[in-house]
Amino acid sequence: MRPTATLSASSSLNYLFPIPPSSSSSFTPTPSLTNCYFHPSTKKFSSLRFKPNKRNITRSAVSIEKETPETERPITFLRESEGADVRARFEKMIRDAQDSVCAAIEAVDKGGKFKEDVWSRPGGGGGISRVLQDGAVWEKAGVNVSVVYGVMPPEAYRAAKAAPADQKPGPVPFFAAGISSVLHPKNPFAPTLHFNYRYFETDAPQDVPGAPRQWWFGGGTDLTPAYIFDEDVKHFHSHRGERRGLGGIFFDDLNDYDQEMLLSFATECANSVVPAYIPIIEKRKDTPFTDHHKAWQQLRRGRYVEFNLVYDRGTTFGLKTGGRIESILVSLPLTARWEYDHKPEVGSEEWKLLDACINPKEWI
Amino acid sequence: MRPTATLSASSSLNYLFPIPPSSSSSFTPTPSLTNCYFHPSTKKFSSLRFKPNKRNITRSAVSIEKETPETERPITFLRESEGADVRARFEKMIRDAQDSVCAAIEAVDKGGKFKEDVWSRPGGGGGISRVLQDGAVWEKAGVNVSVVYGVMPPEAYRAAKAAPADQKPGPVPFFAAGISSVLHPKNPFAPTLHFNYRYFETDAPQDVPGAPRQWWFGGGTDLTPAYIFDEDVKHFHSHRGERRGLGGIFFDDLNDYDQEMLLSFATECANSVVPAYIPIIEKRKDTPFTDHHKAWQQLRRGRYVEFNLVYDRGTTFGLKTGGRIESILVSLPLTARWEYDHKPEVGSEEWKLLDACINPKEWI
Repeated sequence: MRPTATLSASSSLNYLFPIPPSSSSSFTPTPSLTNCYFHPSTKKFSSLRFKPNKRNITRSAVSIEKETPETERPITFLRESEGADVRARFEKMIRDAQDSVCAAIEAVDKGGKFKEDVWSRPGGGGGISRVLQDGAVWEKAGVNVSVVYGVMPPEAYRAAKAAPADQKPGPVPFFAAGISSVLHPKNPFAPTLHFNYRYFETDAPQDVPGAPRQWWFGGGTDLTPAYIFDEDVKHFHSHRGERRGLGGIFFDDLNDYDQEMLLSFATECANSVVPAYIPIIEKRKDTPFTDHHKAWQQLRRGRYVEFNLVYDRGTTFGLKTGGRIESILVSLPLTARWEYDHKPEVGSEEWKLLDACINPKEWI
Repeated sequence: MRPTATLSASSSLNYLFPIPPSSSSSFTPTPSLTNCYFHPSTKKFSSLRFKPNKRNITRSAVSIEKETPETERPITFLRESEGADVRARFEKMIRDAQDSVCAAIEAVDKGGKFKEDVWSRPGGGGGISRVLQDGAVWEKAGVNVSVVYGVMPPEAYRAAKAAPADQKPGPVPFFAAGISSVLHPKNPFAPTLHFNYRYFETDAPQDVPGAPRQWWFGGGTDLTPAYIFDEDVKHFHSHRGERRGLGGIFFDDLNDYDQEMLLSFATECANSVVPAYIPIIEKRKDTPFTDHHKAWQQLRRGRYVEFNLVYDRGTTFGLKTGGRIESILVSLPLTARWEYDHKPEVGSEEWKLLDACINPKEWI
C-alpha cells in the first residue's frame, strides 16, 4: 500500500530549504531557551548562546552571519536528547542519500569534484552543503542537507485546525530536516534535475488545550529539460507513478499513514534519484549541439531562475528569514539569459518544450 | 522649498511596477464595473468587458494574457472622464520622460534601437514598453510607462490610519501611473542605472465615515556599478542631495506638500536622469577590460537578479498578480552568473565595490 501523493500543477518549484506546509509567511528560527546544543566541531554540548531575534528585519547580504563553519562533519546535527527516533533515522537517510547522489555525480562527471561546507547553528541544527561547479558534465550541481530547529508563527501551524476558529495557538517550536538538490548539466540536451525530501515535527501548542503535536513528510523529484526526448521522460516516469509539470512527483503534508511506512516511502523516493536520472545524463551528455541549442538552454535557465527566486516558497523563505544564502542559491544555474519577449518558432523543438510546460501531458 | 525624501538603506530595490506603499501583499487590479474604457487602437470608448478575478491563482507562464496589444500609441491611457488633472499631467510627464531617455540612449548607443510594445487593459489603463537589447553600448535597456486602474486590499490602504483601529475599510479602488527603467551597459566599468517615478490615487472608502481620498508620489534613481569610480559617483550625486545604497535617491508616501510642487519635484527628478547618467556612460563605455572584469560584472548581475526577483516589491507583486510579465522582466540583465560562495580578494577593486554596498558611505 503506497500513500497518495499530492500532485502540483506548477513546475520547477524548488524546496531548497524545508518549510512548513500552508505557510506563505516567515517563521522565526530562534533557538529554544530551554535546550542545550551539541557543537559539532568540539563534540561537546554547550549551554545555549541566545541571539536576539532579528529575523523580521530584511537583512543585507553579509550583515547577519549566524551560521558557524565547521571543519568536519558531525555524527549528527540533532540535539543531545534525541536518539534513535524518526528524526535521527531521517537525518541518517538524507545524509546517506547525499553521499550516494554526490558519488554518482562525480563518477559520471569524471572531472568535477564537490566542494563541501559544513555549518552549524548556535541553537542546534546545521547542514552540509556540497557544490560541484563547472565540471565536465555539470555546469553546477548542488546537494544540501540541513537540520533546523525553529519557531513557527501561529498562522503556519496546521494544528490550528484542531482548535476552534476563535482560538488560535501561539508560536510553536518545530523541527525540520531535509535534503535538497538542483543539478544543471552543461549539454543542452541533458535535463536539469531537482529533488528534495523533508520531515517536519512540531510541539503541541501550550495554549490550545487538546491540540496535538504534528508531524509530516514532504518532497519531490522533477525533471526540467530544455529539449524533450520522449524516451527520457518515459524512463524517468517509470520510476514513479505520479508526475508534475514535465515530470516528477511532489507530495506534502503526508501524515495520514503509518510513520514507518512514510519514512520508507521518502527513503525509496530519495534512492530513486540516481537510477531515474543518471542514465538520462549518460545518454545525453555528449550529444552534439549548436550555439542555437545552447542559447535556448540559457533562456530556459533564465526561466528557472525566475521560478526559483519568485515562486519557490523554500527559496524566498530561506533568503528572507536568514537561511544560509550561499546554500540556498546553489539552486541557481552557473549562467542564465533573459531576452525580451522571446518566442520560439511554432512547431520547433523549442516550441514543443514550451508547449509541454504549459499543457501537461501523460508521458506513459 | 524642497520636500524631504525618505532614504532607504537597502540597495538596488527596483519598482518596475508602481505599487502602493506599506503593502507587502497582493492587490487585485480588476476593473471597476461602473466605468467605460477608452480603447486606444480604435480611439473609442466601449462598455466594460469584465473578466472574473483569477489574480490570486498562481498563474502559469502564458495562461492568462489579459493585456491587449495595440498597433499605435494612444493619446492617453486614462479613462474618458479624466481631463487636465494631475493624473493627466503626470501621464504626460512620464511619457515625455520615456521619449527623452530613450532618445538619449539611442544617441549614445548608435547601434541599438528600442523595440516598442503598446498594450492596454480591458478595464482601462495600459502601457508602453520599450526595450533595446544587445546594442553597442547597452546589453539591455528597458524603459516602461504604465497606467493602472486597480483595487487595493484593505491592509494596503493607508487611509486606515484615519479610521479607528477596530474599523478597517474594505477594498479601495486606486489609480497608479509610473515610469520605470533599468539600463544595463555592456562595459563592466559602466554602471547599471535604475529609476522609477509613480503617482497614486485612491478613492475614499465607502464604509469608513470620514476617511479621506488619498494620493501620493514615489520614486527614485539609483546607480549600480560593478566597479567604483569616485568621480562618477560624485557626479551622479551632485544632481541630488539624497542617496541610497551606492548612489541615488528614493522617496515614497510623499503627500504632505502641495500637489503641484510634488508634481514639479517628480518631474525634476525624471528630467535629471539623462544629465546624471549619460555623461558617466560616455566616459566609461570604451574603457578597456579583461575577462576578469567581465566575470565580476556577470556575478554582480546575478546579484542584481536576486535583489530584483526576491526583494523587489514591485517585481514580485507584478509577477504574482498578473502584470505584463515581459514588461516586468525587462529589468533583468541579458546575461548573469552565480558562483557558489564567491569572495573577492580582500583589498581588490571587486572587494571595494562589495564593501561599499555593505557599508554605505558619503560620496560628496
